[in-house]
Amino acid sequence: MIRDAMNAKPVLDLFKTKLSVINLGLESFAANLVREGANAVHVDWRTPAGGNAKAIAALDAIEAGTAVDVEKANAEAVRRILAAEPTVVGIGLALDVVPGMARDLILHAGPPVTWGKMCGPMRGAVIGGIMYEGLAGNPEEAAALAASGKIRFDPCHHHDSVGPMAGVMTASMPVWIVENKAFGNKAYCTLNEGLGKVLRYGAYSGEVLDKLRWMRDELAPILAAALKLHGPIDMKSLIAQVLQMGDEGHNRNRAGTSIIIRELAPHLVMLDYPKDKLSKALAFMNANDHFFLNLTMPSAKCSVDAAAGIEGSTIITTMARNGTEFGIKLSGLPGRWFTGPAGVVDGLYLPGFGPEHAARDIGDSVITETSGIGGFAMAAAPAIVKFVGGSPKDAIDVTMRMYEICDAESLSYRIPVLDFRGTPTGIDVRKVVETGILPAINTGIAHKDPGVGMVGAGLVKPPENAFRDALVAFAEKYARK
Amino acid sequence: MIRDAMNAKPVLDLFKTKLSVINLGLESFAANLVREGANAVHVDWRTPAGGNAKAIAALDAIEAGTAVDVEKANAEAVRRILAAEPTVVGIGLALDVVPGMARDLILHAGPPVTWGKMCGPMRGAVIGGIMYEGLAGNPEEAAALAASGKIRFDPCHHHDSVGPMAGVMTASMPVWIVENKAFGNKAYCTLNEGLGKVLRYGAYSGEVLDKLRWMRDELAPILAAALKLHGPIDMKSLIAQVLQMGDEGHNRNRAGTSIIIRELAPHLVMLDYPKDKLSKALAFMNANDHFFLNLTMPSAKCSVDAAAGIEGSTIITTMARNGTEFGIKLSGLPGRWFTGPAGVVDGLYLPGFGPEHAARDIGDSVITETSGIGGFAMAAAPAIVKFVGGSPKDAIDVTMRMYEICDAESLSYRIPVLDFRGTPTGIDVRKVVETGILPAINTGIAHKDPGVGMVGAGLVKPPENAFRDALVAFAEKYARK
Repeated sequence: MIRDAMNAKPVLDLFKTKLSVINLGLESFAANLVREGANAVHVDWRTPAGGNAKAIAALDAIEAGTAVDVEKANAEAVRRILAAEPTVVGIGLALDVVPGMARDLILHAGPPVTWGKMCGPMRGAVIGGIMYEGLAGNPEEAAALAASGKIRFDPCHHHDSVGPMAGVMTASMPVWIVENKAFGNKAYCTLNEGLGKVLRYGAYSGEVLDKLRWMRDELAPILAAALKLHGPIDMKSLIAQVLQMGDEGHNRNRAGTSIIIRELAPHLVMLDYPKDKLSKALAFMNANDHFFLNLTMPSAKCSVDAAAGIEGSTIITTMARNGTEFGIKLSGLPGRWFTGPAGVVDGLYLPGFGPEHAARDIGDSVITETSGIGGFAMAAAPAIVKFVGGSPKDAIDVTMRMYEICDAESLSYRIPVLDFRGTPTGIDVRKVVETGILPAINTGIAHKDPGVGMVGAGLVKPPENAFRDALVAFAEKYARK
Repeated sequence: MIRDAMNAKPVLDLFKTKLSVINLGLESFAANLVREGANAVHVDWRTPAGGNAKAIAALDAIEAGTAVDVEKANAEAVRRILAAEPTVVGIGLALDVVPGMARDLILHAGPPVTWGKMCGPMRGAVIGGIMYEGLAGNPEEAAALAASGKIRFDPCHHHDSVGPMAGVMTASMPVWIVENKAFGNKAYCTLNEGLGKVLRYGAYSGEVLDKLRWMRDELAPILAAALKLHGPIDMKSLIAQVLQMGDEGHNRNRAGTSIIIRELAPHLVMLDYPKDKLSKALAFMNANDHFFLNLTMPSAKCSVDAAAGIEGSTIITTMARNGTEFGIKLSGLPGRWFTGPAGVVDGLYLPGFGPEHAARDIGDSVITETSGIGGFAMAAAPAIVKFVGGSPKDAIDVTMRMYEICDAESLSYRIPVLDFRGTPTGIDVRKVVETGILPAINTGIAHKDPGVGMVGAGLVKPPENAFRDALVAFAEKYARK
């Protein structure tokens, strides 16, 4: 009708007829028409890839034909993610169980980063880690050692591991061992330290290190022994359950922590330890609702790792942040990081803190979103908005948006309020770039300075260019022309 | 327009004009018109009180004027319910702590009922209770004793108590003691027996009685000692939390049971008991997701009891069923039961069972709905539909309907998915009768024969006449004319 009007009649005649308008672009145009009594529908349409010429060319090139069938490759990738069977099989010392771990090696969250480029909380956690290992006697010595080149740094992700926030793992830290029983691969993660002053938020005072030593010397052996009596823990079943109990698997973990305590308690009480030590272990878990996070993280890690390295797949198998950069990896481009600047978190702050105190987005915990829970399952956890901000409707909207960038829906992780629909799973970088819909990540916020700790929690947008660069690289490798 | 058409023009002319129809009554009339392209709106209107003349007269009489200000009385009743502070303060033997308890007395669920009129599962539970107390050596002797008149029967509700399903409480059973700290009144409830063959569903075999003895001799003393170390448990806070975790406080109790375990475990492990006995207590709770129900029930009971006996109040302070009859009490008519036949539960059955095996609606657990949780909070627990039937949307609809018959909304018990709206609280019998909207109750289903047990769970409608009779009696006492 618009074309007819433009060609055949004076344009102004158009406004004398009764209009039925389909509006693209600015939504307010449609709203104004509706307010004037016209019949107008707004279509949420955007230029593909935000109009970015290189990204559009890459999408076109992949669409035109690839050396390997992308759809088939992605179907295999999501099949593996959905078939994962993450299972807690034990607790060990990092040096004993984590591949490639060494006394002079410090693992950290996110893509690779040098000491010189590390953000405040990661530097704080490295300083703490060096002192915890007895490699330095005070923070100044530790910082000097970190800067000397005598300590090696490597991402947790390069060692089948993940770490929350700063994600620092050192040789003598105890770690959860989670095995993907469907594929045989394993993932590792430190034990959650609780709230308050903790290493993962960059705190390294005496009390922080004392707690880490207690975790190594008492908590971990007690939990390892209780786990042995209990037998392996089916994390797929537990995560499925907690999504029916108001957790989303990343920042709300009250149900998960409760279930792990009730599962282990009958066995823990049987151990030959002084009962005050057993009580302290139980009280520590009870006082820390994030205790379960360090189990969902390696569960998510070993689930998506099984889908890495599939020729021709555009599925994202890693997302991670080091506080300086956010990085992703694609299944079809194994070993390559695509990065952009870490984002600023939009969220709720603890009393006395505000955005001016915030470090940038940090941590491997976004592995939960990569596997289809966390921010992707926010609709299951409406109460989380009290922690990260927004309304319950926002939480549902976030999950609904994520379906648009995923290739599949979980068969096990289901959202009651969406009629038990499976969570959006298998992020396809083509869809992210084409729609401009970025993965929704909810996260804690660390203080930007070393040694302080947590200041809030909220939602963060990853940098779009990381996804575009990955897509362009994928097209370069796989597109026929 | 309709009147104009009827008076001034031949009726058939009506159908030549473009109709805008407001439809009352059968919804299908409006649906047909819409299907034919007409503009029709359906209004969900019903005759007040279903057209029942006595009920309408009672509503009119109360509306015309009462000796006591009903609105003021109800405001005080809901103020007390909302201000309740249910707190677990201990565990004791019924004979020692329950008012009026005696060795020859058996308490049961629901309004008063004689042995001759008891349903199968309640008879089974009475037989089991008599044998548990050592008053008879076998089921035949126990039944004869029950029929002999030498055993007295009384509702739990007449002794500040509540009991799930058959609700049988005998002298030497351990009970939770819950105190309403805001008003000083207390309520009592037995400990939950778990699933499978249990007394509350009318089973009375040796294993049922053995478990009851273990609960009395080991479980209760262990929990009582752990509770003493822990200190009183603030049930208002816990119930508020579990509504954020997918429980509704009646038939879904996984979150509540998890929280009570994690709260008690650090103290339980400190007790001077052989560790296998402590482990057995923890394992028993872990294996029984309804463990928390027997804490929410007395919490609800002591919350609404504080609102009983307010002159001129039409708020319902008791609903209860004995498997034969369903009964209610009004705040303004203390001591009087209004009853109707217990309903047939519409629900999901365990494999091998169907409606033909079901006993009628039974148990005091509907005290949860009376206090504003349970069925009234179903929107908080979408996953419950896997247990009681229906869809998550049905669960939300149930809660929304209950707002129409309540005078208030909870200040503490909030439903995340409804933007943290407080649960509908304070059922006003006037609203129930006027709208014909009956309180929504979700419940377990017992086998109709003694000795079998649970066969399913579902939703049940209470009998409308109990509410009408209560309203008529209220009008007789309070209406001026």
